[in-house]
Parts: sequence; structure tokens; C-alpha cells
Amino acid sequence: MAPISTVVTNGADKNGSPHLQTSPTQDQKEIDQALRTFRCLIADLCEQFKGGHPGGAMGMAAIGIALWKYTMKYSPTNPNYFNRDRFVLSNGHTCLFQYTFLHLVGYPAMTMEQLKSYHSTRTDSICPGHPEIENDGIEVTTGPLGQGVANAVGLAMATKHLGARYNRPGFEVVNNMTWCMIGDACLQEGVAMEAIQLAGHWKLNSLVVIYDNNQVTCDGSVDLCNTEDVNAKMRACGWDVIDVDDGCYDVPALTVALSQARSNTKPTFINVRTVIGIGSKVAGDAKAHGAAYGAEDVASIKTKFGMDPEQHFVVQNEVYDFFRDAIQRGQAHENEWNQLLERYAKEYPELHQEFLLRVEGKMTDDWTKIIPSKEEFPTTPTPSRKSAGFCCNPLASKLQNMMVGTADLTPSVNMAWKGKVDFQHPDLKTTCGINGDYSGRYVHWGIREHAMASISNGLAAFNKGTILPVTSSFFMFYIYAAPGVRMGALQGLQQIHIATHDSIGTGEDGPTHQPIALAALYRAMPNLLYIRPCDSEETAGAFISALKATNSPTIISLSRQNLEQYPQYSCREKAQKGAYVFVEEEDADVTLIGVGAEMVFAMRTRQLLQEKFNVKARVRSVLKYKSTPRVVIEAYAVNGWERYADAGFSMSSFGHSLPGPAAYKYFGFDEQVIAPKVAEFLGDVKRDGLASLRGEFRDLNDGHH
Amino acid sequence: MAPISTVVTNGADKNGSPHLQTSPTQDQKEIDQALRTFRCLIADLCEQFKGGHPGGAMGMAAIGIALWKYTMKYSPTNPNYFNRDRFVLSNGHTCLFQYTFLHLVGYPAMTMEQLKSYHSTRTDSICPGHPEIENDGIEVTTGPLGQGVANAVGLAMATKHLGARYNRPGFEVVNNMTWCMIGDACLQEGVAMEAIQLAGHWKLNSLVVIYDNNQVTCDGSVDLCNTEDVNAKMRACGWDVIDVDDGCYDVPALTVALSQARSNTKPTFINVRTVIGIGSKVAGDAKAHGAAYGAEDVASIKTKFGMDPEQHFVVQNEVYDFFRDAIQRGQAHENEWNQLLERYAKEYPELHQEFLLRVEGKMTDDWTKIIPSKEEFPTTPTPSRKSAGFCCNPLASKLQNMMVGTADLTPSVNMAWKGKVDFQHPDLKTTCGINGDYSGRYVHWGIREHAMASISNGLAAFNKGTILPVTSSFFMFYIYAAPGVRMGALQGLQQIHIATHDSIGTGEDGPTHQPIALAALYRAMPNLLYIRPCDSEETAGAFISALKATNSPTIISLSRQNLEQYPQYSCREKAQKGAYVFVEEEDADVTLIGVGAEMVFAMRTRQLLQEKFNVKARVRSVLKYKSTPRVVIEAYAVNGWERYADAGFSMSSFGHSLPGPAAYKYFGFDEQVIAPKVAEFLGDVKRDGLASLRGEFRDLNDGHH
Repeated sequence: MAPISTVVTNGADKNGSPHLQTSPTQDQKEIDQALRTFRCLIADLCEQFKGGHPGGAMGMAAIGIALWKYTMKYSPTNPNYFNRDRFVLSNGHTCLFQYTFLHLVGYPAMTMEQLKSYHSTRTDSICPGHPEIENDGIEVTTGPLGQGVANAVGLAMATKHLGARYNRPGFEVVNNMTWCMIGDACLQEGVAMEAIQLAGHWKLNSLVVIYDNNQVTCDGSVDLCNTEDVNAKMRACGWDVIDVDDGCYDVPALTVALSQARSNTKPTFINVRTVIGIGSKVAGDAKAHGAAYGAEDVASIKTKFGMDPEQHFVVQNEVYDFFRDAIQRGQAHENEWNQLLERYAKEYPELHQEFLLRVEGKMTDDWTKIIPSKEEFPTTPTPSRKSAGFCCNPLASKLQNMMVGTADLTPSVNMAWKGKVDFQHPDLKTTCGINGDYSGRYVHWGIREHAMASISNGLAAFNKGTILPVTSSFFMFYIYAAPGVRMGALQGLQQIHIATHDSIGTGEDGPTHQPIALAALYRAMPNLLYIRPCDSEETAGAFISALKATNSPTIISLSRQNLEQYPQYSCREKAQKGAYVFVEEEDADVTLIGVGAEMVFAMRTRQLLQEKFNVKARVRSVLKYKSTPRVVIEAYAVNGWERYADAGFSMSSFGHSLPGPAAYKYFGFDEQVIAPKVAEFLGDVKRDGLASLRGEFRDLNDGHH
Repeated sequence: MAPISTVVTNGADKNGSPHLQTSPTQDQKEIDQALRTFRCLIADLCEQFKGGHPGGAMGMAAIGIALWKYTMKYSPTNPNYFNRDRFVLSNGHTCLFQYTFLHLVGYPAMTMEQLKSYHSTRTDSICPGHPEIENDGIEVTTGPLGQGVANAVGLAMATKHLGARYNRPGFEVVNNMTWCMIGDACLQEGVAMEAIQLAGHWKLNSLVVIYDNNQVTCDGSVDLCNTEDVNAKMRACGWDVIDVDDGCYDVPALTVALSQARSNTKPTFINVRTVIGIGSKVAGDAKAHGAAYGAEDVASIKTKFGMDPEQHFVVQNEVYDFFRDAIQRGQAHENEWNQLLERYAKEYPELHQEFLLRVEGKMTDDWTKIIPSKEEFPTTPTPSRKSAGFCCNPLASKLQNMMVGTADLTPSVNMAWKGKVDFQHPDLKTTCGINGDYSGRYVHWGIREHAMASISNGLAAFNKGTILPVTSSFFMFYIYAAPGVRMGALQGLQQIHIATHDSIGTGEDGPTHQPIALAALYRAMPNLLYIRPCDSEETAGAFISALKATNSPTIISLSRQNLEQYPQYSCREKAQKGAYVFVEEEDADVTLIGVGAEMVFAMRTRQLLQEKFNVKARVRSVLKYKSTPRVVIEAYAVNGWERYADAGFSMSSFGHSLPGPAAYKYFGFDEQVIAPKVAEFLGDVKRDGLASLRGEFRDLNDGHH
């Protein structure tokens, strides 16, 4: 499709850049001045605090002019208007590139004072070392290299999906582009290569990746570690490729390339040759990458570019004038879109109503009524991954904002609902018999856990609440996804990660598939919920918590194997508190903390303690309880539990390849082993007194076998 | 090179498969019977316990015959002889493929009884659900998809490197091949794509990747999530590509392809069309992937292949006979190699001496004398990343077994030593002016943290102790590398991971680059040392610990910023214990636990407590100490410290983009903030008594700012 050109608007040219008053060929004089000014300003901004990343930003100046002056649809006075183009800076260390253009085109918050706060001690700076989503004009927090590419794929995917559901002939209410700037490094990170495969497979022509090809990384020439034919590779991945030879100055060529990309039928890769740190004495060298250039070189840069070496942070009025039309252009885009929506409301009132809910980030249905009640769950042993299906399938079938996907584990994770439609390019039907289209909300991520999480960050970041991504895989493989899951938590993006086959209960696949330490990472991670429900009712509670957590991702950790159901004890409301009395016991001698798939061992141990050891045990969740010793039972590394318990029966080694029940037995998860250990521990406590426990956490599992 | 064909040996054919008594074209009858037998046996092995992965193994049978009968150099009676070919099963779930061929060619440990233990409750099974390095004939533990490709690149890299150092004209003492079997999934995982780029860049013609192209994954057709032109992509990455159309039966074609690959000048990708679960009623379908076929289908498979449906686990003597020459062939390879070594010893006695040390996995020099003494370190504030350079550079320059690399952070991590030679293909000198050759021991991994770790597992697994990989990057990016680091720990492979820029001291790069939760993962991970030294002397201790840990990887976590040096307190010997009294104090009121880059806050807090609050503080490392309250000070999530401390001053949120010192101040890491909190805490303890502390861990950092 050509998303823009179908919307005929006043002053739009054939290439679909609306309101383009002038063309880069007419503006050559202004462009030259803007380039000089921009590059000297970057050098100054890094020089003042003797640090930062000037080289890339200076090299990319012409690309920035082609984007912000002649190509992108955005509105400085309303940075978040819904149908804006999204810009992603995957090479986030060049953030001054973006900050400075946001300043030049008139984003009110991005004052020169703010620009100058880059690398300062100002705690209210909106110019951090990498772009952060909280700030106007920033669509996603990138930073760790490669993430931005995946985020951009998610943003472009959102456009295609929302367009497929809500656009109608003559009413393209969602048709924005996503422009992603990358450096050499982003083409080496696996997460980017996974995302590139998917963008090509889905033919996301709403996505344009602009490669700042300066052939320099920290170590030196890219040839040190990468000599592939990148254009041929991108074509093999289903992308179109455009080359631009003089990316440092040729704004007209860049503008034509960007405009061509816009009317493409595939995602486009624009390979732009640039010179890192152009103008500096270290231009084209790795030294130009990540350090200030020193007063002398900065002065010589200014002399070279015909600016006054004595003056700093200079932006001439002509340069501001040159970019001044950005605000009007932006407001015109908004107005067009608002007018389009008004006509849309008349033509398609119901669709318009639903669309408004999406724009406001509201659910399209009352989800609280959709999750099955306790009575509707089977009381026979059930794997909690199946319980998750009971909860999520009806939600996904009704809630239009849910996009549910899996890293190639559809038969195992139970996330596919009856009547689901796959998110696919419609052409695949004819080319290889694959059903689905862009309106589909079930995503086959392939065996790409990292991209699944990082693309989902882009889906969630398109517009807060418009899309709620649900990912799924085995819990162990969320160690591949961890960098993406972390970035979701850091950005406060709501997502639900369905992590099945947790702990050693996974069984035969062996230690390579049995998570032991991973839970410690997610329990320590800020702004992330990690929940291990023990049965269907607690799984329902986990989904309610996840749906309420509109500013956090949630991992729901689930079992492969059948779990006892405890309808008489488990409670979705209490579970949301993260902790509650499971089984109360008058004057208990001990509190057993049961967790997720291992609750069954806590319950059986409780019974055995009573029968064989005359010990009364209360079973709880995490909550602290002072007056009796507390023992946690979980088949993970115990790290972190010491805060809530006095002793633990847990894992201190990797797992073993055995059938699930045999694996548990092998590591001593068996009431016949646990109960005596607990009784012995209680004997010691009785002898030495509760005080003896302080801080002296006791490991009760001596590794058995 | 053509590693084999240059060694002319009795009975070697032109294609370089020595001692090939017969050719696949002559053996068609035996081959057909072997294929039938193999496929029925796989079906039986999965059927007995109603589980496992039969489909891939059955589809790959002909590939296995081409490998184990006509191509690979291995010795069943001495599985670990040094110059053997390495086989890696990256699609590890098809492990029955490998186990069954190990049985057929006569690996003594792999009895039929052991084969039958697959998916059983036998705890001493050597047939786990994925191959494990502890067992004969298994080179690496694969499992999580994509890892095996990277491991294979590491094994192939080891061959090129050792060959470059030790081979001499007519004396190819190291010239083995690495054969890596992959499935569709391995071509989607980022870690594999990173490794593929590097193998192409390095022209590792010692590597052959065999693609079991059955176009089926768990979700169904590969077209659901991948429609790239894989051959074109591999060529773009610098690989040669060979297609084999009938991979299910055409052993002659497969043998020719493997033989061509052997005499290639680039790494080779053999794209083999196969049918998953061939013979079964679900052949070619996703259902054939990961479940037993049921008694009826297994019977019909046997009928289809002309075997008796009533009989199970049948291997006719003719089939054993067919593979019987494997043992003699293997012993012949060994003898040749041993004879070659004898001649080599006479011709190159010194080189031979060094080579023997490498084969035995011994250091080539007495490393204990190489690390600088305390007196040689500067006493002025020093970043511990620089201290790491002081320790590692002399080690790397002397120890031939060290291969040190970085994920494109040479200027930041200080791992490059004077006179280092890069590991590169010599051609790069002429093609793009890059210096280096295969004898080089400094590796430019590019921006590929995950592949860096997973390829290093292959380097370390080539032969225990022969190569000691040292990786380096910012600590935060070890979240990308985590799946590889974990597999190293799981396999007990010695490696040193140099993780710089730890905690919020990293500063301006911001929260995206500041690790908060990551340490919790590595502290919880079995068989991994995670060490945060506080100054140069403790850094020396960390290296000694890492070099002594011959069965574990070690992460040394280091600061970007300058750290106070404490020569009067710090001690490399005590540091190796993981905990010791740093500053003793008669009748101390509190024990402060100082860690790594935050030791300075413990020391300053101690002083301020004394001066302003009349509180006596002892400073310690982790060790427990009962009689006084213990406070840990570290800029990470506190999870796990509760075991060793009663209170903590730590992080509960992500970081902030500020200069390092400002970032610490922003989060309250400042003795002016910490000391009063500690004093207040001690007041409470005095009032309520030590017993009041039990388990009630106290967070002293209320987030300041």
C-alpha cells in the first residue's frame, strides 16, 4: 500500500509528503547552513561536559533534515496525536541527533537549556544518554543495541493491524509510517536479525529502516567483525533495498529515497553511506564515536564549517526559520485526521465507537465478567498451563486489544482460542496456503523469544493501552527474552508473558529446559510482576492482577504437569495480594509456604507432619508471620526467599532429565523427605528458641539422590 | 584448506574419507535395511514410554548414515581422542538420532539397554531428552535452540586456531572437522544468526552445517513464520551452499555433499530436504514432531518398511555388521595421528612439548607468578575495569591457552594487551586491510554478546583446558549473553567473563545500561562464580579464583568509575574465600557489608558513624556474623542478601541517566544519607533486641531524591 498517497490533502505532492512547501533542491542554501549549524552544535553539546556520543549524530545530520523537514508526519505541539509517524532511534547513543531535531522543529519541552543538560547533573533533564519514552517525541526507550529495530517492527505491525481492522475505503484512519534509524551494531545483534526476518515475512511496508552506514564501531572498522553483503541479506529476508551514496550532504537523494520507501510493498532498508564525526579531525575513525573532541578540534570543526570558533551553541534565526513550518504542518495533519474521523463517525458509527475506545486505551469489553468463575474450573488435577488457557482464551476472543502470540509452542501453551485469526500478510494464502491477514490477533513469532518480547514492547508502545500483547513460551526460554522483558518493565508497558513448563516438573527435556535461577532475576526486576499460581483459581487471580497492572508487565509462571486443585482453599481475590493464608491451623507449630507447582508438596507435607510427627502446620503464601518458623517449598534457587522464610526446601543445582514426577523425587520433593526435615528443623528451633533463627536461613534440601 | 586430503593415508579416497572400504553406491542394499531398521527403532523407543521426539530423528536417518558410515572421523573405543571430528546436534530434541548412531557404530557405553532408558525413570540414563556433554560421544550440551550452532562455530574456531599455531608443512596435528546438525528453528534464533555471521567472516571452512529442512515446527509449516530465501542469505553471510533434494534416502548424494564441504574454502551450509516422521501416518506434519505415534501407527510404520510389526527394538546382525568397521576405522585414525605426533616430536620438539601441555589441558606457563603483586598496583583511585587489565593483560600475553575477546568494547574493557594478534582470516589483510590470522588470540566478537558467550562454550568444550575463553562487555549486556553463560555453567566449562560498568556508577548512559536485577540471576545460578571486587587487590583475588575454578565459569563484575584503593585492608587470599573481615573493630555496634564498587560507601559510612553518631562499625564482606546487626550496602536489587544481612541499603527501582557520582547521590548512596539510616536502625534494634530482627529484613533506602 501507499499509506499516505491515498489520502489526498491540500498541498500533498505525488510522493505523498503533504504540505511540502518547498523541495530540498530549492532549499539547498538553507540545508547547507542547517547542516553546518547542527554539526557544530552537537560538537559543543558534547564538549561542555567532556563526554557523550557526537560522531553518529554529526554524520546523520542530513538524514535528520530529510526526515523532520521533508518526510515525517508529526506534530510538535501535540506529540502523541494518534496517527503520527513513529520515529525510533535504535542506535540510541546518538540521542543528541533526535534531541536536537526535536528542538529545531519546535517541541516546546525541548529548549536549548534542556539540550545543554545532556550529560549534566540536572536530575530533571529530558536529554538522558539514551532516549526515554517518558519524554515528548520519544516513542520507545531504546539503549541496548538491536532493541530499537524490534520495537520498530512492533510499531509498524500495530499500524498494519489497526489499519486492517478500522480502515475503510477512503477512510485510512490509521496509516502512519515507522522510521527506524540504526547503526552498524544493530545489524549484528540477534534480536534485530530475528525482527528483520519477521518484518520481511509479514511484508510490513509501514516500516522503513535507515542504516547509518559509517562502517565504524567502538573497536574500529566494521570489517573487523562483519564482512557480509548486507543488501543481499536484507533482500533474502524479503526487504527492498535503496542505496544512498552521499548520506552526509545529499538531502535531495535522501528525501527521494524516503519517499520511495513510503510507497513500497515491502519493508524498506535504506543503506546510507555516512562519515562518523564528519568535520572533526577524527572523522571516519572509531575515536569519533564516544568522546568529546576537545576544545581545539571543536574550534577547527567550526572554522571548517565557516562558523565562529569563539561562539558556542549557535543556532541562527535562519535555521530556526527553516524548520518553523513543522508546527503548522503538524497541526494540519492533526486537523485532517480529526476531520477524517468526523466523517468516519458518520459513515461507520459502531466501528468509530470501538476505535475511540482503542485510542483512549480502554478495553473493548468488560473483562472482569469474562474470566471463568471458580465453579467453572475442573476440580480434577489440571496443568496450570491449561488453566491459563481457560482464563486467556475467552479474554482473547472478546477483547479486541489483545494480541496473543507464541514462540512456536501453540500445542503446548494453550493460548490459541477457537476461531482465532492469525496475523499474516494476506498474500501468504496464495503463495503458500497460510491463512490469516493483518486483522488477525494470533501471532506466530517463530522460535524467536527475544524478538517476541522486544517487538511486543513496540506493540504496547504504539499508544498506551491500544494493544495488550500476550507472549508465550516455556519459562526457561524467557532467559532468551530477558533483555526485551526488562525493557518492557523499564518502560512501564503492560504485557502478559505466559511462561509454561516451569521448574523441574518439565521433566524429560532435562536440565537445559528446567529453570532454576531464572525466577531470581524476575523477582528482583523492578516494575515486573512474577506470579506462580498453584491451581486454576489462583491462575484466574494472576490474570486479574496482570490486567489491572496497566503500567507493568506480568509473567505468569505455569506448570507443564497436572496440579491438584484446591477450590476449598485457593482464592483469586486473596491471590492478588500476593500472599494469604491457604490453610489456617490453630496454634500451628510451623508455617509452610507453598508456591505454584510445588504447593502440592506443602499440602502433603502438612498432612504427613500431622499424622507422623504430631506437628501442626499452617500453609500460607509468602506473607510474613512471626510467631512460628516459616519454611518455603519451591523447586527454584532459594535466593530472595530468605526475607520471608526461616528455612527452605529448594534447588541448589541444575535439574535432571527424568519424567516430571521422577525429577521431583530425584531432588527430594516428596513429603516423605520434606516432612522429617521440617520436623528436625522445628526440633532445633524448639531447643534454641526462635531468636536463634535470626538471619540464619536454613537449607533443608541436602540434594537427596 | 582440505584438512584431510593433505594427509595421505592407507586407503584414503580422493574425497578424503580415509579407510572407506566401500562406497554408498556399492552399499545400497545395506543402506536400505539400515534406514528401515533405524526408523522403526526410533518409533519403538518413543512408543515404550509414550513420549519423546521421533519425527526429526526418523527424517534424518540417511544423513546419519552418510556421517557416521562414510564421512566423520571418530573412534568409539576412545571417544575423546584429540583430533576427532566434532559432531554437534543443535536440534537437540532429536537426540535419539545421535544416541542410536552411537549405539550402531559401537560406543561401548551406548548399549541397547541404555537406548531403552530414553524417557524412563532410570537416574543413570545416558540418554537424556537433550544430549549432555558428560556422556561419551557428546561434544556439547545443546538443548535451547540455536546454542548448538554457536557451539559448533566455537569448535571449528578452535581447530583453525590450534592448527595455525601447531600445524607445520606435512604435520597437520590439528585438522578435524566440525559437523553441525540443525533444524528450522536454529535458523530463527538470533544467537545462531550472530554465529553464522562470524563463521562467514572468519571463513571457517572447518565447519559444516547440515540443515534438516523438513519445513515443520511445533506450530506447523515453517511458512507460518519464516519465508526468507535461506540459501541466498547464507551466501550473503559468506557461506557456500549445497542442496540435497532427497535427504530421506539419497545417501550417495549426501556423502558427496559432505565430502565436497570438506574441501571447501568457506563454511558450508548443506540444505537437505527431508520429511519429518517419514513412514508414519503423520509424516510431514507438525504432529510428527514431539509425540509417540501410538501402537497402531508404529505397527503400520514397520509394515510399510517391511519389518515385523510384532517385534520391537529390532536391529538385525546385518545392520550391526554394516557399521562394524567404524571401530577399526577409528582406531586407524588414532594410530595415524599418534604416529604423526611421534614424527612431529622429532621434527619440532619444543612445539610438541607445548602442544602436549595444551592436549593435557595444562597452562603453558606458571600463571600464579604472572598476576601483579599488591605493591605493583597504583594506590590512587583506579577503576576496577583497569585493575582487571593489570591482571589479565600479562596473563593473556603469556598463556597460550587464553583467547580473550570483547563484544566491541576494546577501548572500555582494557582486555587488549600489548602485542596482541587478532583472530582473523589472513585474507582480510588484502581484502580490507585488517591485520590478524588464525593464530591470533584476541577476538573481535562484534556487537554479539549472546554469540560471544555461546561460541566461547564451544571453544572451551573442544578439549577440557586446551582453550580458556575470556569474554568482555558491559555487565548490563550480559543479560543478552545469559543463555550462553548459563549453558557454560551447566556444562562446567571454565571461562572468565569480564563484566565492566556495573551498577549505577555507569552513569550517563542511563537506566538502560545500569544493571539492577541482573546480579540476582548470576548469584542464584548453580556452578557459576559471580565476584564484585572492591579494588585492584581484590580484583587480583578474583582472577586467581577464576583461574582455579577449572569446572566453572566466573563473572568478574567491575566498575567504570575510579574506586578508592584499600591496600591496608584488601587481601587477595581472603577475597578468594568470598568473605572476610575488611576492617575489624573492637566491640562493634554494627557490621557493614561493603561490596565491589560500593565498598567506598561502607568505608565512608563507617567513618561518619564513628564521628557523628558514636557508633562503632566493623566492615566485612559477606560472611555471617551473629552478635551484631549486619547492614549490606550495594546498588543492586537486594534479593539474596537477606541471608547474610539484617538490613540493606540497595536499589528498588531502575537507574537514572546522570554522571556516575550524581547517580549514586540521586539514589542516596552517600554516607550523609546512609549513616543516619544505619544509626536509626541500630536504635530500633537496641530497643527491641536482636531477636526482633529474625527474618524481618529492613530496607534502609527509601529511594531518596
